[in-house]
Amino acid sequence: MFIKPVKKKETSMPEDKTIESKSLDPAVRQMIRKAGEKGITTVWDRYEAMQPQCGYGDTGLCCRHCLQGPCRINPFGDEPKTGICGATADVMVARGLDRAIAAGTAAHSGHAKHLAHTMMKMASGKAPAYSIKDSVKLKSVAGRLGIAIAGRKDMDIAKDVAAAALADFHEKETPVLWAATVVTEGRVKALSRLGAVPKGIDHEVSEIMHRTLYGVDADPVNLLLAGLRCGVADLAGCYMGTDLADILFGTPVPVVSRANMGTLKKDMVNIAVHGHNPVLSEMIVAMADEMKKEARDAGAKGVNIVGICCTGNELMERHAIPSCTHSVSQEMALLTGAVDAIVVDYQCIMPSLVTVAECMGSKVITTMDICKISGAEHVQFAEETAAENAKEAIRSAIDTFKKRKGHPVDIPDIESTVVAGFSAESIVAALAKVDAKDPLKPLVDNIKNGNIRGICLFAGCNNVKVAQDRNFVEIARRMLKENVLVVATGCGAGALMRHGFMDPANVGELCGNTLKAVLTAIGEANGLGGPLPPVIHLGSCVDNSRAVAIVVAVANYLGVDIDKLPVVASAAEAVSEKAVSIGVYAVAAGLPTHVGVMVPVLGSPTVTQVLTEKIKDLTGGYFIVDLDPASSADKLLAAIDERRKGLGI
Amino acid sequence: MFIKPVKKKETSMPEDKTIESKSLDPAVRQMIRKAGEKGITTVWDRYEAMQPQCGYGDTGLCCRHCLQGPCRINPFGDEPKTGICGATADVMVARGLDRAIAAGTAAHSGHAKHLAHTMMKMASGKAPAYSIKDSVKLKSVAGRLGIAIAGRKDMDIAKDVAAAALADFHEKETPVLWAATVVTEGRVKALSRLGAVPKGIDHEVSEIMHRTLYGVDADPVNLLLAGLRCGVADLAGCYMGTDLADILFGTPVPVVSRANMGTLKKDMVNIAVHGHNPVLSEMIVAMADEMKKEARDAGAKGVNIVGICCTGNELMERHAIPSCTHSVSQEMALLTGAVDAIVVDYQCIMPSLVTVAECMGSKVITTMDICKISGAEHVQFAEETAAENAKEAIRSAIDTFKKRKGHPVDIPDIESTVVAGFSAESIVAALAKVDAKDPLKPLVDNIKNGNIRGICLFAGCNNVKVAQDRNFVEIARRMLKENVLVVATGCGAGALMRHGFMDPANVGELCGNTLKAVLTAIGEANGLGGPLPPVIHLGSCVDNSRAVAIVVAVANYLGVDIDKLPVVASAAEAVSEKAVSIGVYAVAAGLPTHVGVMVPVLGSPTVTQVLTEKIKDLTGGYFIVDLDPASSADKLLAAIDERRKGLGI
Repeated sequence: MFIKPVKKKETSMPEDKTIESKSLDPAVRQMIRKAGEKGITTVWDRYEAMQPQCGYGDTGLCCRHCLQGPCRINPFGDEPKTGICGATADVMVARGLDRAIAAGTAAHSGHAKHLAHTMMKMASGKAPAYSIKDSVKLKSVAGRLGIAIAGRKDMDIAKDVAAAALADFHEKETPVLWAATVVTEGRVKALSRLGAVPKGIDHEVSEIMHRTLYGVDADPVNLLLAGLRCGVADLAGCYMGTDLADILFGTPVPVVSRANMGTLKKDMVNIAVHGHNPVLSEMIVAMADEMKKEARDAGAKGVNIVGICCTGNELMERHAIPSCTHSVSQEMALLTGAVDAIVVDYQCIMPSLVTVAECMGSKVITTMDICKISGAEHVQFAEETAAENAKEAIRSAIDTFKKRKGHPVDIPDIESTVVAGFSAESIVAALAKVDAKDPLKPLVDNIKNGNIRGICLFAGCNNVKVAQDRNFVEIARRMLKENVLVVATGCGAGALMRHGFMDPANVGELCGNTLKAVLTAIGEANGLGGPLPPVIHLGSCVDNSRAVAIVVAVANYLGVDIDKLPVVASAAEAVSEKAVSIGVYAVAAGLPTHVGVMVPVLGSPTVTQVLTEKIKDLTGGYFIVDLDPASSADKLLAAIDERRKGLGI
Repeated sequence: MFIKPVKKKETSMPEDKTIESKSLDPAVRQMIRKAGEKGITTVWDRYEAMQPQCGYGDTGLCCRHCLQGPCRINPFGDEPKTGICGATADVMVARGLDRAIAAGTAAHSGHAKHLAHTMMKMASGKAPAYSIKDSVKLKSVAGRLGIAIAGRKDMDIAKDVAAAALADFHEKETPVLWAATVVTEGRVKALSRLGAVPKGIDHEVSEIMHRTLYGVDADPVNLLLAGLRCGVADLAGCYMGTDLADILFGTPVPVVSRANMGTLKKDMVNIAVHGHNPVLSEMIVAMADEMKKEARDAGAKGVNIVGICCTGNELMERHAIPSCTHSVSQEMALLTGAVDAIVVDYQCIMPSLVTVAECMGSKVITTMDICKISGAEHVQFAEETAAENAKEAIRSAIDTFKKRKGHPVDIPDIESTVVAGFSAESIVAALAKVDAKDPLKPLVDNIKNGNIRGICLFAGCNNVKVAQDRNFVEIARRMLKENVLVVATGCGAGALMRHGFMDPANVGELCGNTLKAVLTAIGEANGLGGPLPPVIHLGSCVDNSRAVAIVVAVANYLGVDIDKLPVVASAAEAVSEKAVSIGVYAVAAGLPTHVGVMVPVLGSPTVTQVLTEKIKDLTGGYFIVDLDPASSADKLLAAIDERRKGLGI
């Protein structure tokens, strides 16, 4: 049986009002208008065509885990009350959620595994384009892992670190190192009590797939605890991703950059690098300079690299490369007509890009074996030949430029200033300028005295179901006014940077007085002649690990566990299964974690209650699911205040 | 939006006709009638309540891989034509199929990993209840893997085999040993050319989860090739499962046993062991004898162990333990009122068992951490304490017996004789009685001269969408008449054994003349005074590996690759994602592979065409999807004849 989609009534709202409901970003709005004029289908059109969306899928009450299905459960108590096998709503929802966590974990850790291979090849002399950019971080990571450092060559240490990383993927008697060594001791104990310390990242993913098979686990709480362990494996994948990228490409230090489509340049070969893993994009950046002459020969003023999504964050935090746009608006970059090629690695890449690129005379270049797109150009990327591969991709973009040269482009004249590049290390360094002996003291003192009411991390994607950036912007605005220190990663960071939240000039307008004073004091101690930006850019979505590093440092400083700290997280516009697994590890770490879109769990009151309430007794963290930004902000603030009360501050 | 299920019209068919449409098995029919009388809901009722099933899910045109969904694609060309991200029907279907393959692979290999741990604990002296039961097989497996044997103790070899098994789960530079060493050299080359040789079992599962994430792989052929590689990893998991179980519990030799519910005994403590992994059930069998006295003290005549699903096959092939029932009729065992406990490990266990057990005064005992069921009793099983755990479960069943003692039971007076226990080794041994010097010669000669027209493997489950056993019985009947040698595993074997297809007495009625002559000649050479059974029982679903071992031996003997042999496979009533991954490795191995239920791929003409046609050019194997047993048999015979023609025989 097929649902007959019921067409929505034509709206009587004026066109601009409709566009407002799609994105808060004026550049994006301009391009949505253009897409409408040109009759190019975008994500918002496809979303509209999908209405009404299936309520069973939406609530998690749909199961396709065997060939007796598809099954659905009626949420109103009528038949069908269970799946054909007898799986209840609780089981169905928990199984579905577990598979999402497994997919998110597989993706983050796949990215990290890729970096581990790059490092191993580099250390074995097989990847000449790569080197160790941060020897201090290499040693710090090695030390944390228990790898010998003294008197050893960097390359030998790197080999051991890469080997330890690869070993973390398979089951062993000891826990996953990148999980057990990156949180507080108390957290390791708490998670151990729950059986939630992973033994191997791929092992946990595989085990989730096994236990969610037809006729295996049918106890929702047991399923959720396994999901929690897999979420902790996701933390390991993220943390490993950050560590290895920092060693190979440098640990970020603050840089000034720009964001939004105004960063595209009419007269240059514009290459948007999109995806997640810096293994590719770093090479594109490195080779862009070498390819300048070829670009000039083609009539361009040079090669202009911009980022989309987390690749944008990775390049921005390390090289001040500007970010063009993020997440749900990725097609809009192509609508400018100025992007000569989108070069992608993997994750969050809409297959629709190929169609839009065709319409706009641009192209999509895929580079990874695991991520091809029908209709895209493929340049197979390998570490051994990275420089050549990068040149080939750039050359292809130059070819596109030759064809578009002279044709009109529509680059929205919109960009914002961004101060990015805050790693845990660079934050400690900035704090050290205030108190060289005891760098964390100024931060902790200001938390204690209430100048900083708490810390809120924004992470995750832009979801087409939300007017792009609205949840991020509204909640962050409120947090800052309430003197909450805001940090951000991924497309959450992308949203905030495009709206000026990472421009120090806006501290006065955005921040409450005490927070403003703290940001200014640190900024001035660092010779900036003004404050740090209102929102601290921590990097890409694997870089949520940096937030973990910071809260772990604060927790250890205070001698309490993470679940006692006035720290909250929000994936206000989540899309990817990666956002689900990140959310789970945030909760495992002990954080109240807001999700601003519907997660397919509402079909199970049990699962919903465990995730939003009962888990608090186990990890201290819990989910807050709320689609309204104003009440979401209220709840996050209340959670912060509850924690402050608990600490007696 | 929720679909409003449209109630089916009341049928005007007499009750018995309706029951006929549910199962071919008279014992099952009797219990379905009883369930109706008692008002107990069974799988068939739940299936009816699920009608009409969602057409999007049925055709694979539903995606829930991100939080922008759920998405569906209209198969009739109207909107929505793609997912919100732009994923086409081809991408959506291929992604969904890949995740099913990953789940199946994770399950089989999870079972194998469990056995590897058992072997390692045994070899390390930590699991006193276990030992090496087949030292010859241990050495044969070790030899195949390149592990030194000469002059070494069995326990040391076993440790190395277990370590090699565990190492096969993670990515390494060399291929998965249990894949690369178990097929023909030609097959390894063919799969290598396709990039379809796995590097690590869990690694492949994880990679599938990564590439099927939102915004990763969007090339259906690329996705399918990855699925193929994961399918080969599933072969590795299955083969490892068989190898390790044979070493630990003995390689099967032919035994006489019985099947169907008549094997339950009114006056005994009846324990149905259900699931897959012999690690648990072997201990239950081993301890049943010791618990005889406790059972007698409770008023029973003893402890009667029967099997359900693949646990039944595992125990039957090694200990002649009877099989009670299989797959879709598992609830029916409880309806007899004579089962005192169903003791389960994992896979294919309907959660509904708990409800039916409650209604019938019985109980379900779960034993594995990864498979708990709400409402079931849990006895945590560990290799270190296996004997005690098994006793605890048996004791619990004795307690149930005490309560039911004296109450009426309804044990259908139906059972069939089964000759089971054909491993590749025992088949070669049987053939050696015909030609001691060249055991494969009699088999191959009879294939060549047409006395055996070909070989057909039946595997997989019973699906509620098919009258239980109908497809297996109808297709097998035709195959045998056409002198095709039929081998069977899993619940396919279960179906055929319950209908007398494994009783040598039925060779005359079931088999064509030349096949009959061959089966008789081998039987008589082995001193049976009559033929082998019409259908050769190869064991459980991991034991599809035994079929692979046999066809590889034949291929090597003939000096051709597997894809040239007149060998076909059929999962005529498939349910589990494991059946999907088995089907994929059968195709990877080069076999025409029939599936008798709808697989959710029809929404993509591309995927359907690749799987049923184009893949033939790559592996030689391909899928035949046909729901009609008569025409399915025609197609399987035609595939056999095409292969014979290709060989010029």
